[in-house]
Amino acid sequence: MSQQNLKRPLTALQKHTKKNVTIRLKNEIEYKGKMSNVDSYMNLIMTDAEELHEGKVVANYGRVIVRGNNVLFIKLENEL
Amino acid sequence: MSQQNLKRPLTALQKHTKKNVTIRLKNEIEYKGKMSNVDSYMNLIMTDAEELHEGKVVANYGRVIVRGNNVLFIKLENEL
Amino acid sequence: MSQQNLKRPLTALQKHTKKNVTIRLKNEIEYKGKMSNVDSYMNLIMTDAEELHEGKVVANYGRVIVRGNNVLFIKLENEL
Amino acid sequence: MSQQNLKRPLTALQKHTKKNVTIRLKNEIEYKGKMSNVDSYMNLIMTDAEELHEGKVVANYGRVIVRGNNVLFIKLENEL
Amino acid sequence: MSQQNLKRPLTALQKHTKKNVTIRLKNEIEYKGKMSNVDSYMNLIMTDAEELHEGKVVANYGRVIVRGNNVLFIKLENEL
Amino acid sequence: MSQQNLKRPLTALQKHTKKNVTIRLKNEIEYKGKMSNVDSYMNLIMTDAEELHEGKVVANYGRVIVRGNNVLFIKLENEL
Amino acid sequence: MSQQNLKRPLTALQKHTKKNVTIRLKNEIEYKGKMSNVDSYMNLIMTDAEELHEGKVVANYGRVIVRGNNVLFIKLENEL
Repeated sequence: MSQQNLKRPLTALQKHTKKNVTIRLKNEIEYKGKMSNVDSYMNLIMTDAEELHEGKVVANYGRVIVRGNNVLFIKLENEL
Repeated sequence: MSQQNLKRPLTALQKHTKKNVTIRLKNEIEYKGKMSNVDSYMNLIMTDAEELHEGKVVANYGRVIVRGNNVLFIKLENEL
Repeated sequence: MSQQNLKRPLTALQKHTKKNVTIRLKNEIEYKGKMSNVDSYMNLIMTDAEELHEGKVVANYGRVIVRGNNVLFIKLENEL
Repeated sequence: MSQQNLKRPLTALQKHTKKNVTIRLKNEIEYKGKMSNVDSYMNLIMTDAEELHEGKVVANYGRVIVRGNNVLFIKLENEL
Repeated sequence: MSQQNLKRPLTALQKHTKKNVTIRLKNEIEYKGKMSNVDSYMNLIMTDAEELHEGKVVANYGRVIVRGNNVLFIKLENEL
Repeated sequence: MSQQNLKRPLTALQKHTKKNVTIRLKNEIEYKGKMSNVDSYMNLIMTDAEELHEGKVVANYGRVIVRGNNVLFIKLENEL
Repeated sequence: MSQQNLKRPLTALQKHTKKNVTIRLKNEIEYKGKMSNVDSYMNLIMTDAEELHEGKVVANYGRVIVRGNNVLFIKLENEL
């Protein structure tokens, strides 16, 4: 494991800005797209995002801001 | 992706004031209209807003203030 | 849209004091009446308020204080 | 409406100390009795209180302290 | 009503230390016993406590610490 | 009751470090074992812990850290 | 029990960085893998993680950031 992985979670998340992520919310819905930006509360802007229900795309978003308290996890798609 | 997208989520949201948004709340109901203003808690004023249940308009609001903690996401309708 | 709409949500809410509102709580019940006062947490005093379940009046309140964390939205009835 | 109604919600609530209230909690149960005291979190002491389920008295309390975060609303029974 | 009842709720609760209480939690379970101590968050130590489900004793606790955020109300058994 | 019981709940909890406890979480699952340490948020480390569902052991943990906000109560097994 | 176990829960958790953990979330889903890092809110980065539903692996994650407020417990797999 590289030194890079030793950064605190929020720092690592910031480093991933402009890369692809899949986020799952507490309501089990997922959003897959580019994470344009994120703050320490895990509020995040996603661009060109797909909304997935049980793995199926049900909607598309040009630009959407997700309120951080709804986030269950953020999968970092492009490993550094 | 423009530099503009690199702004933090709340700053980007502020920049979108007076433009159209669709917000989805935790209870799955959506409101579509002009976002007159918003604060860092994501409390927001919407004007000329439609309330949608599963995509159907069920009510109209001249001016409504949504308490930020109920927000799931805010879709920015007019891309900058 | 007037300049007035550019005020932050809580400031706009304060400006609406002594006017009519309809509030919807997270439990879907609505209260319609005069908003005598409100604070930044959205605690609010309503006077001569009706409680509505699915649009039907089920109770009346001379003066009632609603705890702000229960609020879903506040519809401002008298547009400025 | 008197000037008195222009007080902020928590100040108005304090002014009502030692008067009768009916409080409804988030779980829909109501308590009716004298509000001996209250703080800014809406923790409150009630004396000689009745517990009501769907309008029927199911229990009586000589003195009970309700934790404020459970409160939905407080109906002020004796208008000033 | 004595002057004693005019104390703020948390002060009144502190005054009741070492006396009997019945607490009801948000999950509707009740605990009846001596309140050995309590803090401003309503975390409390109970000694010789009974756990009651719908009024029936289902367990006994020599000493148990209840996390305050679960508390619905605290009935003060020995009026001052 | 000894003077020892007059300590505030969190102080009493700290005093119980390295002794046995049974904790019940909000989801009704219980953990029984040694409380290696605890902080003021009620985050706690348990060692040699059993997980119990309705009184039956379903899993064992060498060392587990429970996030404090899930705690309903902590039963202190070894009375001081 | 070694002195090491006497550290506060969050300190002990930090010490476990780069070791294996199994975390259970409030929604009962578990993630098993290496904890690359963690902060005091229990936000954590997991690498090479498996997602388990009732003990069965249903997904794999190269690198995932879990928001701390969802955590029920963190089992430390490699005892110190």
